[in-house]
Amino acid sequence: MTLPTSLTGVVPPVCTPLTPDHEVDVGSLVRLVDHLVDAGVHGLFVLGSTSEAAYLPDRHRRTVVETVTAHVAGQLPVLAGAIDMTTPRVRDHVAAVTAAGADAVVVTAPFYTRTHPAEIATHFRALAAASPVPVFAYDLPVSVHTKLPGDLLLDLAAEGVLAGVKDSSGDEGGFRELLLGARARPDVTGFSLLTGAELTVDSALAMGADGVVPGLGNVDPDGYVRLYAACRAGDWEGARAEQERLCALFRMTGAGDPARMGGSSSALGAFKAALHLRGVIACPTTAEPQVQLSPEEVGVVGKRLAAAGLL
Amino acid sequence: MTLPTSLTGVVPPVCTPLTPDHEVDVGSLVRLVDHLVDAGVHGLFVLGSTSEAAYLPDRHRRTVVETVTAHVAGQLPVLAGAIDMTTPRVRDHVAAVTAAGADAVVVTAPFYTRTHPAEIATHFRALAAASPVPVFAYDLPVSVHTKLPGDLLLDLAAEGVLAGVKDSSGDEGGFRELLLGARARPDVTGFSLLTGAELTVDSALAMGADGVVPGLGNVDPDGYVRLYAACRAGDWEGARAEQERLCALFRMTGAGDPARMGGSSSALGAFKAALHLRGVIACPTTAEPQVQLSPEEVGVVGKRLAAAGLL
Amino acid sequence: MTLPTSLTGVVPPVCTPLTPDHEVDVGSLVRLVDHLVDAGVHGLFVLGSTSEAAYLPDRHRRTVVETVTAHVAGQLPVLAGAIDMTTPRVRDHVAAVTAAGADAVVVTAPFYTRTHPAEIATHFRALAAASPVPVFAYDLPVSVHTKLPGDLLLDLAAEGVLAGVKDSSGDEGGFRELLLGARARPDVTGFSLLTGAELTVDSALAMGADGVVPGLGNVDPDGYVRLYAACRAGDWEGARAEQERLCALFRMTGAGDPARMGGSSSALGAFKAALHLRGVIACPTTAEPQVQLSPEEVGVVGKRLAAAGLL
Amino acid sequence: MTLPTSLTGVVPPVCTPLTPDHEVDVGSLVRLVDHLVDAGVHGLFVLGSTSEAAYLPDRHRRTVVETVTAHVAGQLPVLAGAIDMTTPRVRDHVAAVTAAGADAVVVTAPFYTRTHPAEIATHFRALAAASPVPVFAYDLPVSVHTKLPGDLLLDLAAEGVLAGVKDSSGDEGGFRELLLGARARPDVTGFSLLTGAELTVDSALAMGADGVVPGLGNVDPDGYVRLYAACRAGDWEGARAEQERLCALFRMTGAGDPARMGGSSSALGAFKAALHLRGVIACPTTAEPQVQLSPEEVGVVGKRLAAAGLL
Repeated sequence: MTLPTSLTGVVPPVCTPLTPDHEVDVGSLVRLVDHLVDAGVHGLFVLGSTSEAAYLPDRHRRTVVETVTAHVAGQLPVLAGAIDMTTPRVRDHVAAVTAAGADAVVVTAPFYTRTHPAEIATHFRALAAASPVPVFAYDLPVSVHTKLPGDLLLDLAAEGVLAGVKDSSGDEGGFRELLLGARARPDVTGFSLLTGAELTVDSALAMGADGVVPGLGNVDPDGYVRLYAACRAGDWEGARAEQERLCALFRMTGAGDPARMGGSSSALGAFKAALHLRGVIACPTTAEPQVQLSPEEVGVVGKRLAAAGLL
Repeated sequence: MTLPTSLTGVVPPVCTPLTPDHEVDVGSLVRLVDHLVDAGVHGLFVLGSTSEAAYLPDRHRRTVVETVTAHVAGQLPVLAGAIDMTTPRVRDHVAAVTAAGADAVVVTAPFYTRTHPAEIATHFRALAAASPVPVFAYDLPVSVHTKLPGDLLLDLAAEGVLAGVKDSSGDEGGFRELLLGARARPDVTGFSLLTGAELTVDSALAMGADGVVPGLGNVDPDGYVRLYAACRAGDWEGARAEQERLCALFRMTGAGDPARMGGSSSALGAFKAALHLRGVIACPTTAEPQVQLSPEEVGVVGKRLAAAGLL
Repeated sequence: MTLPTSLTGVVPPVCTPLTPDHEVDVGSLVRLVDHLVDAGVHGLFVLGSTSEAAYLPDRHRRTVVETVTAHVAGQLPVLAGAIDMTTPRVRDHVAAVTAAGADAVVVTAPFYTRTHPAEIATHFRALAAASPVPVFAYDLPVSVHTKLPGDLLLDLAAEGVLAGVKDSSGDEGGFRELLLGARARPDVTGFSLLTGAELTVDSALAMGADGVVPGLGNVDPDGYVRLYAACRAGDWEGARAEQERLCALFRMTGAGDPARMGGSSSALGAFKAALHLRGVIACPTTAEPQVQLSPEEVGVVGKRLAAAGLL
Repeated sequence: MTLPTSLTGVVPPVCTPLTPDHEVDVGSLVRLVDHLVDAGVHGLFVLGSTSEAAYLPDRHRRTVVETVTAHVAGQLPVLAGAIDMTTPRVRDHVAAVTAAGADAVVVTAPFYTRTHPAEIATHFRALAAASPVPVFAYDLPVSVHTKLPGDLLLDLAAEGVLAGVKDSSGDEGGFRELLLGARARPDVTGFSLLTGAELTVDSALAMGADGVVPGLGNVDPDGYVRLYAACRAGDWEGARAEQERLCALFRMTGAGDPARMGGSSSALGAFKAALHLRGVIACPTTAEPQVQLSPEEVGVVGKRLAAAGLL
């Protein structure tokens, strides 16, 4: 399908279910997509951080995009991450995911290298020139160790290089300046501003965000769809109640003992444990070298699900 | 060839010459290898940071390893970087570079993800299990945003997981603790400790380092070979004089204007400009999205070469 | 005056006007206090970051607290920062500012040293034991290089150690978790949660924050009072419009050229230039070693004021 | 006494012994000074990081400087830290420590604030103008969160603003560039380059450093004096053996459990425990809010002392 002029709504970053021997579990992936689509989400984002894109070999990445685009068959747009270190390597991923059917690509600034804003601009321009589909910027300083400058994003939007941004910087003040900057510039049109901050979606939509890319949306897509609808209807009290329920649910991401594992293992492990407990995926394994949640830690996830009315 | 029990000496991280249209310039690469081998270096490290590995698509990486291993034909060991974000992706690179002939692989901790020491240990263990050749750890906090803990490295050495480490952390005190720790542990044998700190090679060798992996060694391999020989001969005065000459030469890495480009563009651009000026490679282009040095900045590189007696 | 059980409302961090020869300009300080009080603010915070507390010698700090507490004479609460590196030094500042009349003290985690959460807890406990007035925690990672853990803050609130927190971390998701955590714990009462994020006050109040400590409130206290009132009245549309006007005004903080000065010089220089242009203070000088705004940069501040209807 | 034109040798940062109720233990401080002077050190640095300057209230700082300068009575130079956030506050400390008899002052870049190199230059210039004694720059990025640029240090040396630098950055490559830069500039004379890196003193002196400021020198001043003498005599083998013995001793700084305390508590606690075990000071207490070493952790310190032949 062709991406809408400006992407809006709930666009979950889709988890990548794995088998116990670390292959993509295609059957579970399809069930997860149905779980999301049936809840009424407005788009899907595959191969993002929540999808464990950083852990997936190229053949797994291809399987994921092909499976999801084939299954949704144009019912809703599928964005695909093209996560790699620099322009030439990202260009290959852009070619691969678009060949596999992605409707848009999502790209970070260069990482691993020591990078200058002028190089970031060159990077996005080169990738937009090479991509047959729209390019979204992915602002994720916790991984990329660079914050995308707001003025640069708006300049690239005005040039037609970028179709939108997924802001996972956690910097709500900066995101608001971006929203207001986009509104103030007549040369910026059809630029989709999506927040990845799943705890402040009501705030972001009140500020004027176009949509949300919530990792927790894998676990409770209905909740995020209700939250989005409440905001769009101007029901801010209802939105806040729904958001607060989701905030309580989000605490599952701290289930893993920080003395024993990193933050990715804990958060992604919790999402997958929850999807497994809810019967959506067959196996909660996360990719190597992540540490798996213990039974007690999975029990914490289960309690959060139960408290949120999801078990 | 089989890697020696403990790798020693000068092991330059080989630059990757590119054509003006950003393909690997195989002819220039072969000339660069000859330039290094003729100077008497003791090994070659391809696909490291100085090789622009972060910028090279998989097909370029394969070309580099195949070209270099075929050309040196076992005269000296070829180590190859397998630089990617996590275990499954690195595993594919290990398979690719060893199929292409690498005698050892060089691997960082996971990056882009939020990682715990237990996950780093799992990562190296899984890769050693999968690799047909020895595995070296690459400690590069400026890129990976994690410092490899010394005790973990020694434990992995004792287990037989790691054959050595390339320490580019810039933390000479920590490197010395690692050297002394390795010497103090009878269960650590044949563990090769190489410094990537090209300005303090005399110090590192005096402390007991086995060798050096100097990016600047592309430009002046003879200098580093002389420096290594002086240290091994206990001629510390001679070593210091040679090292200081190389420190002056190293200032070329600051040739690029920091208002206009990042540190990678400046340093890698300077190395390639110097190789071009010295007639070793055909074209000084660095990979996208790096900013190219201006003629004036190339002039600064030329002056450094001239002052070091290399033009 | 005695601090209210739970401090609420608009509590500006009061700028410290200086004379051209870098003494405290007491007359201007009194005029600034009147400017704030007349606008209807609910409290004053002296010796915070916006007050240039880090730049003020002890005798200036004392002058500021004595001047402000004497002038407001109990009409509204005066909080005073006790900003220093560690417990013993902060304890002396707590004694000094409370002797000078402060109704509450505001304290960061230790900085300059390498600190552990257990040491942060000891720090706040020792200071609360020594303080005759309530203690607020000041969460300012950009200066302190530590983020105060939410669970620690709530534990200290439950113990009666902390009366509130000023959250200037910019982490709105973490702030919401703190708000929800405080609400969920019956042992946490009368704990005042204030945001320092001046661009998202409407969001913070919608989430349940008790108040706001806006540096920009020096320049436009009426705007923040209106914004607070609109939120309390549930007029979220009106609040958003007022907040967006203030966001546009806030862009004055970028007036200073980043090639020529640091972020403190630019932001604090802009606030003082604006107060000078509005006729509130006699001299816009900021403390040493800050760089002063150029006439052109002051012109940018003036344009922001004019656009906001403040000139 | 007047500081020598260029300070050289071993200049330990003197620990500040405390009584159990956290007052300065003047008797122990005098014994510690004798312990150092008797070993043949070449100068003393009070109120540095190892002295817990960040933890000492002003009256303690004054007691320390007065006690030490009175006791050494001009036998050797006494440098004093003037550690605070910005120019006006540091200026007051400079006045206080010079009134108390310090022969030179040691000053960091501004911290807590967001600072630009131009502001750092202004800071040092203003302090040198205000100081009756020479000013040393203190480069300590782990505390100050800024690395002092080498070219700036050399410019300030050429201007006569700085008399030297204590480099505790841990960046040995950068320190060497500074040493070579100072040697290359005819306008830089009498500029004393001291390393604070206690594990690589032999290397630093071989590179041309003028001296060393070793925290561990409190515990084993004889060792550092021997090490310095061996280097000056060109006995690099002897120097290395002594340095390696000190490296083993230095591992005491890791005695404290990182799950229970921060790095300052562990390292400063170990130094004081060692001084207590050696009978130099009466009480090993460190200042608030540091965590005290457990008896088991003190036992680890004792084992390190015994292994180094110091018990």
